[in-house]
Amino acid sequence: MVEYLKEEEGDLWLTEDEQGNLKVSYRIKEVVYEEKTAYQHLMIVESCDFGRMLVLDGVVQTTSVDGHIYNEMISHVPISIHPSPKKVLIIGGGDCGVAREVCKYEDVERIDMVEIDRSVVAACKKYLPVVSGNLSDPRVHYTFEDGIVLASTKQNEYDVIIVDSSDPVGPAQALFEQTFYESVYHALKEDGLMVCQSQSPIFHKKTMLNTYQYLGGIFPHVKLYTAVVPTYPGGLWSFTIGSKRSISPVTKKVTTRNTKYVNEQIIESCFSLPQFITQLLKREE
Amino acid sequence: MVEYLKEEEGDLWLTEDEQGNLKVSYRIKEVVYEEKTAYQHLMIVESCDFGRMLVLDGVVQTTSVDGHIYNEMISHVPISIHPSPKKVLIIGGGDCGVAREVCKYEDVERIDMVEIDRSVVAACKKYLPVVSGNLSDPRVHYTFEDGIVLASTKQNEYDVIIVDSSDPVGPAQALFEQTFYESVYHALKEDGLMVCQSQSPIFHKKTMLNTYQYLGGIFPHVKLYTAVVPTYPGGLWSFTIGSKRSISPVTKKVTTRNTKYVNEQIIESCFSLPQFITQLLKREE
Repeated sequence: MVEYLKEEEGDLWLTEDEQGNLKVSYRIKEVVYEEKTAYQHLMIVESCDFGRMLVLDGVVQTTSVDGHIYNEMISHVPISIHPSPKKVLIIGGGDCGVAREVCKYEDVERIDMVEIDRSVVAACKKYLPVVSGNLSDPRVHYTFEDGIVLASTKQNEYDVIIVDSSDPVGPAQALFEQTFYESVYHALKEDGLMVCQSQSPIFHKKTMLNTYQYLGGIFPHVKLYTAVVPTYPGGLWSFTIGSKRSISPVTKKVTTRNTKYVNEQIIESCFSLPQFITQLLKREE
Repeated sequence: MVEYLKEEEGDLWLTEDEQGNLKVSYRIKEVVYEEKTAYQHLMIVESCDFGRMLVLDGVVQTTSVDGHIYNEMISHVPISIHPSPKKVLIIGGGDCGVAREVCKYEDVERIDMVEIDRSVVAACKKYLPVVSGNLSDPRVHYTFEDGIVLASTKQNEYDVIIVDSSDPVGPAQALFEQTFYESVYHALKEDGLMVCQSQSPIFHKKTMLNTYQYLGGIFPHVKLYTAVVPTYPGGLWSFTIGSKRSISPVTKKVTTRNTKYVNEQIIESCFSLPQFITQLLKREE
């Protein structure tokens, strides 16, 4: 059994301890699927409180119960900002939840999804349908390769690019570097925008601030927003937008999209930052 | 050693497992203070990631690192709504963090604080100064008795009542019942308002909805807001306001109050609820 699974008095527990001083343990009913892929250790487990969860190298990535929060927030916010997104690129996003949300916009003509680990997509389609929606929309085109390589070959092609990466360790590390964001800038059309998850404002201040600074050095407009993801450490999570045009969401675009977290009020208010984040960002400017 | 403290390979860990299927463990440097009070088991511990923490019956109540979020949100929001609060009652709030925030308003003439457990106040004043501020403001008057009894003896006396309780188990249970809220209604002046913490929208839906329903049955105006408290399960936390007058915060009242989480934008946006909460509340109405 892998080190992050433990049996205790007949119960199975999955323990995340990547924070060093904080451990979160989930009671597990069963391991539904397990694979040592070319890139990472992958599990789909059935948990008691959060339903099925995708676990990569022992870290919970998404769950049936709260996965929609992250996936909705990283999709609907940038789409509500672009006046008419036709072509969208998703980098990472192997659980397919982001692609699923983007598909809710009929104006979008093509969604390219580039994920390094083919096994993640296969496992989530098969064993995590609540998140992936077992996606079969013909507008979605999969490429299984390094998103960094793919982004560097594109010029002036996308309206919106969504960087849905895991934590900046292992395969996702290079997705948090300046050269990658420069490729993304060039892959965007002249009125395009990108968004990435920029980690926890509490536990990963440095990553969040680096991302803000990198994007601010490349894009004329940069803005940070937050959401609450219960299964991410600290609950509070940050996302950062880099845009070639000014950032003003059209909130009514998100109504009737069958969302569980996002609504007009949330799109409006997610840019309202707690005072400590405002002050952190000010110091960077 | 109490059951929620464990030594593991030379390190001390405090484990919260009141959720049943979810355990959160904090690496601890030392137990600073410990007491079996008349009501509960009390500890002040020095943690690695969250500084000093107040722990009651094994549950983290407040910490040096994130305690201000909860304390600011339960104080500044109701105060920003009342046009001119002179007399404030705090029920519970033994860590003194709420009293400390209320003291930031020079218009407030008197703060009554009723806490059932005298030991909590003493320990927090002595060992948790980052939260309590070692409060010595002469406007604060302490009474050590059951808040339910005290509230039931008051009539038309307070502008704002803040119910800062622990979870609805043990000594705090009766603070989540309808008869208590009725006493609070009568203890308020004719333009007064109350606020209480109403638990997690994810883990304690029933408590949150009951609170909303109880207050809605007693007060003409009721409104729910949220904040992110990293050391509370799920991160997302709810607060509910019951008011005799309409609820519209004057956001600029909170500026220059030396806050770390609250600012004008947060006061404005905290009432913007995720879609799943909006729908839960709608079903109640």
